Amino acid sequence: MEHERVILGIDPGTNVMGYGVLGVNRGKPEMIVMGVIKLSRFESHYMRLRRIYERVSGLVAQHLPDEMAIEAPFFGKNVQSMLKLGRAQGVAMAAALTRDIPITEYPPLSVKQSITGNGGASKEQVANMLKHLLKIPEDKMPDLLDATDALAVALTHFYETGKPQIAKGPKSWAEFLSKNPERLVKRNNPLPDSPVKS
Amino acid sequence: MEHERVILGIDPGTNVMGYGVLGVNRGKPEMIVMGVIKLSRFESHYMRLRRIYERVSGLVAQHLPDEMAIEAPFFGKNVQSMLKLGRAQGVAMAAALTRDIPITEYPPLSVKQSITGNGGASKEQVANMLKHLLKIPEDKMPDLLDATDALAVALTHFYETGKPQIAKGPKSWAEFLSKNPERLVKRNNPLPDSPVKS
Repeated sequence: MEHERVILGIDPGTNVMGYGVLGVNRGKPEMIVMGVIKLSRFESHYMRLRRIYERVSGLVAQHLPDEMAIEAPFFGKNVQSMLKLGRAQGVAMAAALTRDIPITEYPPLSVKQSITGNGGASKEQVANMLKHLLKIPEDKMPDLLDATDALAVALTHFYETGKPQIAKGPKSWAEFLSKNPERLVKRNNPLPDSPVKS
Repeated sequence: MEHERVILGIDPGTNVMGYGVLGVNRGKPEMIVMGVIKLSRFESHYMRLRRIYERVSGLVAQHLPDEMAIEAPFFGKNVQSMLKLGRAQGVAMAAALTRDIPITEYPPLSVKQSITGNGGASKEQVANMLKHLLKIPEDKMPDLLDATDALAVALTHFYETGKPQIAKGPKSWAEFLSKNPERLVKRNNPLPDSPVKS
């Protein structure tokens, strides 16, 4: 099916990389495909990077996305893990940059906020909301939530690029908290069925 | 000129990326070309990454290297700078990985150690030693030492892959110093024309 706009969402990781392709028809978003690129079976760091490049290049060639959206944290455990994550992001980006596809990054909190209205939402909550918003049949929901995370960043990009420029969200967690003081209470009292995972 | 072996050395950075191409003829290394890719004129981080990918791809297509050697620090100022460095390394690596070119990384100290015998050598000292070892004419020496750093990592790779496995150099600066006590004196009494920079 032809789409008026295609957005490729990527959730990069060095063990599993999620991807989600979102199509837009008559202004309405729909899932084209989502899945994961499993990297843990490759022992070599370089083999993983190569696999990422090949698979993302393949997705770009197959779906011809107009834009790429990447979920990208601003901080990490340590400098070594950030260097590896940066390399994984770099090879994924290279696959898009060689075809002039513009890239936009969204921090994980913004994606959760945009999809569920709650920056502290769990991956399961994001997946359930996506299933509802895009009317995804149960049998097409993935086992690994890296796939839904990737589709979520694509949908976030669709929302962010569609809304008026004046309707900006909070710029920081502190600003967000000052406007939504009840969020802090929820973090101290999580619902039993929604464990807060990172 | 045909070379029996070609090594592409890369010194990645987010402002300037150095490159050096080393050819081997009858077991002897010689410089084919070295230079820098200036990135600071591009404001956008993505434009810089794209430029790196395009230029490194171009070097690979032109010189058909058998191997790539990258100077890669194991730590950095902060996680944010390491993420950006990782991305720059990632796109450079992607250009090699797509052509099945094996990549080897060397930390800066190993490169300095390998070229000058001193892990604490300045960039100028590395450049001067390269000039001597490869008999590079004065008019071919670059203004920016990112270029000599890149050629230095290519030459380091040549040395490391050529020497017998038993003939390993000192494993640490302490071990090196104990074997070469005169180096310590030099550090306290640097030559006027070779300031110690990092």
